[in-house]
Amino acid sequence: MKRLLVIGIGAGDPEQLTVQAVKALNRADLFFLLDKGAGASALLDLRRAICERYVEDRAYRVVEARLPERARDVADYAASVAALNAAKQALFERLIDEAMADGECGAFLVWGDPSLYDSTLRILDAIIAGGRHAIEYEVIPGISSVQALTARHRVPLNRIGGAVQITSGRRLAQSGMPDGVDDLVVLLDAQDAYARLLGQGLEIFWGAYLGTADEILIAGPLDEVAERIRDTRQRAREAHGWIMDTYLLRRREG
Amino acid sequence: MKRLLVIGIGAGDPEQLTVQAVKALNRADLFFLLDKGAGASALLDLRRAICERYVEDRAYRVVEARLPERARDVADYAASVAALNAAKQALFERLIDEAMADGECGAFLVWGDPSLYDSTLRILDAIIAGGRHAIEYEVIPGISSVQALTARHRVPLNRIGGAVQITSGRRLAQSGMPDGVDDLVVLLDAQDAYARLLGQGLEIFWGAYLGTADEILIAGPLDEVAERIRDTRQRAREAHGWIMDTYLLRRREG
Ligand SMILES: C[S@@+](CC[C@H](N)C(=O)[O-])C[C@H]1O[C@@H](n2cnc3c(N)ncnc32)[C@H](O)[C@@H]1O
Ligand SMILES: C[S@@+](CC[C@H](N)C(=O)[O-])C[C@H]1O[C@@H](n2cnc3c(N)ncnc32)[C@H](O)[C@@H]1O
Repeated sequence: MKRLLVIGIGAGDPEQLTVQAVKALNRADLFFLLDKGAGASALLDLRRAICERYVEDRAYRVVEARLPERARDVADYAASVAALNAAKQALFERLIDEAMADGECGAFLVWGDPSLYDSTLRILDAIIAGGRHAIEYEVIPGISSVQALTARHRVPLNRIGGAVQITSGRRLAQSGMPDGVDDLVVLLDAQDAYARLLGQGLEIFWGAYLGTADEILIAGPLDEVAERIRDTRQRAREAHGWIMDTYLLRRREG
Repeated sequence: MKRLLVIGIGAGDPEQLTVQAVKALNRADLFFLLDKGAGASALLDLRRAICERYVEDRAYRVVEARLPERARDVADYAASVAALNAAKQALFERLIDEAMADGECGAFLVWGDPSLYDSTLRILDAIIAGGRHAIEYEVIPGISSVQALTARHRVPLNRIGGAVQITSGRRLAQSGMPDGVDDLVVLLDAQDAYARLLGQGLEIFWGAYLGTADEILIAGPLDEVAERIRDTRQRAREAHGWIMDTYLLRRREG
């Protein structure tokens, strides 16, 4: 049996690891450091720094690999993600096979919380279902970018008794503000989807590189700040070569 | 100026506090331990244990108070919550006035994450808007019960590219599964709202007292496990005198 830990490491601030996550880091014999594309090296550096900072008096190995990337400009988004996950699964299986001895414990350091827009759990379940590997795994929750955003803006996610929805920029661009929802959090927006929602009385709470030294926060009525957010995003993306940002849209009260 | 910290302490497991939260605990001169009604003493005990475990070499004061409760059986839910929040605000103002000296730092230990179905931020904003108190506050995110649930069931919150909604048992009972959402998390369900959704091909991942020694997990097709969840809830509520539970409902894939 090989044992895997899927550890949520928070969305940028290494102090947002939990005590449970720190203990889990100290149970691992090896760490899989996987990342891809734009921003990859910064995110890998952060994971390395987390291992160095929190693992005490324990030798560990680091296994680095480049994650495959999704084919861009494909009409069928779900199919392209499924193909990507198949490629990731093959990579995970190879790494688990080659890098881990029986009885060892390996850890995946997942950005934010493992339950939110991350494929690690899905891939591990597919590997287990395949039946060729004797593995078991445990999930350690982490502070997500959603919580990092609301904490920095000091804003509740939901109104009294109200619902909140978490969605992607892609879906927002397709469908706009969903019915029956006054509070909507958007991740993975590569296309400034918020800019299509002017004139609807929305407020926005936007944050980029949350929890890091490069953090940027902008909040206000969407109609007034959309332009500033768009400019800021573009400049930041140019300066860093990549961006990670998220936002909460809310209908105005009453 | 009085300084306040709103610290998310996780949803039951004291090891789910973040390193940032532990540091924040060590900046506080006093802790406000507020709770109410059923389960109050267990939740207060957990907060006291957190202070004792994590505060090092630092004297602190504890200010305990009983939170006002919402009037039950009131037709206008939002109005009853608004009245409750006004009463809470008056209590907070009195505590801040009487228990804190100028320049001191006080901490509220908020269950789970402060952004989710918690009124602390709203109340502090109302106090600041009132203008009678010179206070500033900071928010430290915490692992929410939603994340505790998904981690224990090792289940993602969202499907590939899909949206997830977080709502209350009250809203679910009123409106059923929302359109365009395959994954729905329900908190604050006092009425077994899931039991109204049989025959729709839903799966449920249910958890009670997550992160504590009394944790209970049940998962499966809703039609098959609803009865077992209802029985388990009722027996647990009788045994403990109170219950805290949450669940994820998902439409079956494909
Ligand atoms: C693939 S998703 C992973 C989400 C992650 N599992 C979590 O819990 O936050 C990546 C998206 O998360 C958001 N994100 C992650 N870290 C962020 C940060 N530090 N600041 C702003 N947004 C962030 C961005 O919307 C980004 O496109
Ligand atoms: C007033 S809300 C507060 C939520 C909290 N701020 C959070 O982030 O989890 C209380 C509800 O949270 C859920 N909850 C909190 N702790 C829980 C636990 N340990 N196990 C299961 N559900 C929990 C229950 O649905 C409960 O009715």
